[in-house]
Amino acid sequence: MKGLQILADIKPELLLVEEELQKIVSTPDDILSRASSRLLQAGGKRLRPAFAIIAARSYRYQREKVIPLAAALELIHMATLIHDDVVDASLTRRGQPTVKALWGNQISVYTGDYLLAHSLMLIARCQNPVIAKVLADVSVKMCEGEIQQLSTAFRVDQGLRDYFYRIKCKTALLISASCRLGAEAVGAPPGHCFALGKYGLYIGMAFQITDDILDVIADQEELGKPVGRDLRQGILTLPVLYTLRVRPGDSELRRLLQKKEKSEEEIRFLLDLIKSSSGVEYAFDVARMYVTKAKSHLTQLPSSQAKEAFYQMADFVLERKF
Amino acid sequence: MKGLQILADIKPELLLVEEELQKIVSTPDDILSRASSRLLQAGGKRLRPAFAIIAARSYRYQREKVIPLAAALELIHMATLIHDDVVDASLTRRGQPTVKALWGNQISVYTGDYLLAHSLMLIARCQNPVIAKVLADVSVKMCEGEIQQLSTAFRVDQGLRDYFYRIKCKTALLISASCRLGAEAVGAPPGHCFALGKYGLYIGMAFQITDDILDVIADQEELGKPVGRDLRQGILTLPVLYTLRVRPGDSELRRLLQKKEKSEEEIRFLLDLIKSSSGVEYAFDVARMYVTKAKSHLTQLPSSQAKEAFYQMADFVLERKF
Repeated sequence: MKGLQILADIKPELLLVEEELQKIVSTPDDILSRASSRLLQAGGKRLRPAFAIIAARSYRYQREKVIPLAAALELIHMATLIHDDVVDASLTRRGQPTVKALWGNQISVYTGDYLLAHSLMLIARCQNPVIAKVLADVSVKMCEGEIQQLSTAFRVDQGLRDYFYRIKCKTALLISASCRLGAEAVGAPPGHCFALGKYGLYIGMAFQITDDILDVIADQEELGKPVGRDLRQGILTLPVLYTLRVRPGDSELRRLLQKKEKSEEEIRFLLDLIKSSSGVEYAFDVARMYVTKAKSHLTQLPSSQAKEAFYQMADFVLERKF
Repeated sequence: MKGLQILADIKPELLLVEEELQKIVSTPDDILSRASSRLLQAGGKRLRPAFAIIAARSYRYQREKVIPLAAALELIHMATLIHDDVVDASLTRRGQPTVKALWGNQISVYTGDYLLAHSLMLIARCQNPVIAKVLADVSVKMCEGEIQQLSTAFRVDQGLRDYFYRIKCKTALLISASCRLGAEAVGAPPGHCFALGKYGLYIGMAFQITDDILDVIADQEELGKPVGRDLRQGILTLPVLYTLRVRPGDSELRRLLQKKEKSEEEIRFLLDLIKSSSGVEYAFDVARMYVTKAKSHLTQLPSSQAKEAFYQMADFVLERKF
């Protein structure tokens, strides 16, 4: 997100969010502090706080109302990242637990719970029933998305509907809440909050789709994590589901996607097949469609710097390489 | 808790809590519904809802304010039970994951998160900032207790302070919140809420100590789970810490307590040693002291059926066998 002017503009606010997060991870407990600090230092785009702050800036911006909300949004996001790290014993290799799995699961669970609990404290500080209600609803949906992801893993009989439901729950609803509640926190008119919620929902869909595309095509170094991660975990993303659709008779493709432990060669083979079947182009078209839909909800908002910023953020989602 | 008159009195209210919980676990998702229903059907004493309901009954009882709170308290408790089930890959036996560990960890994490998220929805429904704030604080402390339990596991250099801090965080604070917030929800005077919070805190301490005693002495059948579970997990409870104290030169005791995988014989040996060192009697004395302390906070409350019920609940904690 380098080069986005808006992020330079709101930098002082983002630093306050960072301070808030830093305070929370600086606990006297050594394990807890190390586990949560690691995640904090790993950075991350702080997309959710940014959306909330930008949304609030169109109205009567009140720092003390926006920063706790922004930090709570990031904590919820961080907690889900940590809980995603919990693995099953079946992931041991030849009886040896992987380093990450060793002693890691219980710490991951409680560290995630700890961050979630702190998000509750921040939400309580907001003293706004709409914020509490929306974030509770989103939290329920996020769990439903995660569970659906587990139950559809390695299943080639799933459809696009399953995929869109999943990414809505897992990603889009929290980004939608970020945009909507940023405005809500500073008393924006209900119509504007609603429009921002819709904008965030569609931006969130596009964001997850480009994330899934990057897992197929990214430069491993630039992305900072190995590509093909979703395939290894059995998560079938939009480019994969499109490839399945356009190759209805390809039983080898189906066999490999269902295989629990794939070799490096098999991953490479699948990635090449997806690329040559235009799975990436298709997914990109869908992402572009969502961005257009997102922007259409901005027209109802009065002109402002923040509105311009939302247009910029929308374009960034399509251009990002990490 | 059979035979406690008070539980018969509040049965209609407890059934409403049960209905609320049942609604939450009846999701269209099969995995989620099976995982959370199992826990619900396993029963449990519903101690936290009972405390909240009894506390509220001394004042202007309003069902619509108390039931959501009571259900939220039980959900928080259930979620911690599920998250405690998450194991580390190191718990595989000879390279084979135990049945519970297989595919269980991720489901446990998300099912726990799902119940927690639903507790947030219920808390939001309460529309009472004190309830939101207290439960957020308690949630943070519960995580701190769990993490401390992890970091002190198998460590014979820990003291009674570590133990008391741990059971306060893990158990006593949520029971304290149950008593306090039940009264708070129906607008009880602040002094009464405070006294009930103190009562619950000390009852919670006594409750966890008797729980820890039962893990040493219980009839396996009656308790419904194997004894010596804490020893196996490396959790050093009050009877054990007392035994360490009165046997300062016993290096065999120390060696066995630190051992990660104990045989059935070693567990039996340790349990016998704890019993013959009066570890159980000592722990029971401490539990009795906490019950006395708990009762002392009831004197400030006006006479009522509920007050009598709290005295009964206090005695039950010392008499329970399961």
